[in-house]
Amino acid sequence: MKGIVLNRSLSGQLEEREFDSFLIEDNQVKIKIKSAALNHRDEWCRQGLYPNLKDGVILGSDGAGVIVELGSKVTHLSLGQEVLVNPAMNWGNNQRVQGKDFQILGMPSNGTLAEELVVNADRVFPKPSHLTWEEAASLPLAGLTAYRALCYQGEVKAGEKVLVTGFGGGVAQFATQFALARDADVYVTSSSPSKIEKAKSLGVTSGFNYRVAEWTELANSKVGGFDLIIDGAAGNSLNDLIQVAAPGGRIVFYGATLGNPSHLEARKIFWNQLKIMGSTMGSDRDFNQMLDLVRTHKIKPVLDQVFSFSQAVEAFDRMKAGAQMGKIVLKP
Amino acid sequence: MKGIVLNRSLSGQLEEREFDSFLIEDNQVKIKIKSAALNHRDEWCRQGLYPNLKDGVILGSDGAGVIVELGSKVTHLSLGQEVLVNPAMNWGNNQRVQGKDFQILGMPSNGTLAEELVVNADRVFPKPSHLTWEEAASLPLAGLTAYRALCYQGEVKAGEKVLVTGFGGGVAQFATQFALARDADVYVTSSSPSKIEKAKSLGVTSGFNYRVAEWTELANSKVGGFDLIIDGAAGNSLNDLIQVAAPGGRIVFYGATLGNPSHLEARKIFWNQLKIMGSTMGSDRDFNQMLDLVRTHKIKPVLDQVFSFSQAVEAFDRMKAGAQMGKIVLKP
Repeated sequence: MKGIVLNRSLSGQLEEREFDSFLIEDNQVKIKIKSAALNHRDEWCRQGLYPNLKDGVILGSDGAGVIVELGSKVTHLSLGQEVLVNPAMNWGNNQRVQGKDFQILGMPSNGTLAEELVVNADRVFPKPSHLTWEEAASLPLAGLTAYRALCYQGEVKAGEKVLVTGFGGGVAQFATQFALARDADVYVTSSSPSKIEKAKSLGVTSGFNYRVAEWTELANSKVGGFDLIIDGAAGNSLNDLIQVAAPGGRIVFYGATLGNPSHLEARKIFWNQLKIMGSTMGSDRDFNQMLDLVRTHKIKPVLDQVFSFSQAVEAFDRMKAGAQMGKIVLKP
Repeated sequence: MKGIVLNRSLSGQLEEREFDSFLIEDNQVKIKIKSAALNHRDEWCRQGLYPNLKDGVILGSDGAGVIVELGSKVTHLSLGQEVLVNPAMNWGNNQRVQGKDFQILGMPSNGTLAEELVVNADRVFPKPSHLTWEEAASLPLAGLTAYRALCYQGEVKAGEKVLVTGFGGGVAQFATQFALARDADVYVTSSSPSKIEKAKSLGVTSGFNYRVAEWTELANSKVGGFDLIIDGAAGNSLNDLIQVAAPGGRIVFYGATLGNPSHLEARKIFWNQLKIMGSTMGSDRDFNQMLDLVRTHKIKPVLDQVFSFSQAVEAFDRMKAGAQMGKIVLKP
């Protein structure tokens, strides 16, 4: 069976490699992958920007497919079942934070960019029936991250004014859709007018172009402060977010694509009683609740483009360029 | 009657001035002040570092005394009653944050550094019977600030490892005492070994000298991460606190005596799922709950030194120098 592995000795840093079919243990299942999807993490692995990298490991955290083999102790799943995979492994029992053994599928363990995936059965969930294979594969990592940031850390409530930054990204899109499903009044930022239009078509009230210097004043005069802000950029844009947060507001960031802020307006934070919270991935409970929300509200991931495995370098390059609008899907 | 007013034309910036006795409105009371106490805010007003300053206003947010006149609509208080004053005025109905009309007693309204104080009756509470006048006057502003930071924002729980930074300050001392009363495992930082000894005598487990460069490693090896950190300094020490926070930990800061941080370790915040929260003063509910805690556990404020009104400049200078260990009290 074929899998796409990290190989930093090649110019594209990826290699399609032939494997013998993996053996499964009693508590595992083998899934024939129908679709996989990319996350920033995959591209960071390719660029060597992630800790504990190993060449030869199959990349990919997101996948969906059909169960083709069941371990002897697996009773809650069946052969031929259509499933998706929760890539958050060994979270532990503390809802507040992952434990020391926490890992993400797709590095250092073999991931979803393969014809077959072997995982522990407790990571495997029935595919929501309203989703295509491409959509189902796009949901797990970004949906989980968005759910935790918005619902567990952010504790979003109906009627609240929610700002989601950088609407082009997968987590941001899920956060937007989940916030709309929770009856929040949702706004986005993007540097792209077409992405803002896409957000409006999903139901957001308005969007702001963060490349426009005075977007914070514009947002404040139009909205009067956001109760909850979901961000994946951090960097100095965090101080912009502090400016547009309502008094008593919460800012949750699930990544820092802009790096570390080089200053922080401390007085504004304590006088306005703001909360700035970090969030990453999510617990098993978060994942189950996320799936419930997706099923109940028939939420469909926004898809960008579908590639074949042989186009993997092209697909990763698209992620690197940041041009995508929605999830990038790869199919065997 | 005499009061100590801001007068920035004088070298000491304070003036003891004679006033006619103030008139009271139907919903107000007049209190004969027995003791008043200083807060950093008073010294910042004296230094011109606070917004909306007016010369001629009587300073002071903390005071306790005896009711000598009652407005006609005041029914829950009585003449001769021993009381203390909640200096947080017009918080509003939102527990999360103060409203736009929020003010603190003692600027721009006349404060407690006077022989008489006129305030709305809803700011006036029976003096806890286990407190002296000096202790009662020391409680309100710092006790309220500490309670909100620790209990409302920080949601301290029994058994949690709590670090309180800068144990010399009044808020830090109350936060320490309140955390002990809530059965937390409490630690402090201070640059002064004698202050750390004082903290231990109150029941804290251990203290760390933040002037020692490797105090964060020491704390991590000894304690293994704090669940909750209460801080009033911010500045770049915030990054030290991020280092000693347990995964999933909370950092609450109620002030920024060290100013703004010049960097912030974003990745550590999101990967460790940390919460950084601002807090200031507290709601009426916070104040009532704080008084309950103080009464139930017979908590006594730590007192530094008692001055007469004529020694006001000396008392403020002691606050400015930061040499105090506990609250600085002024008596008419």
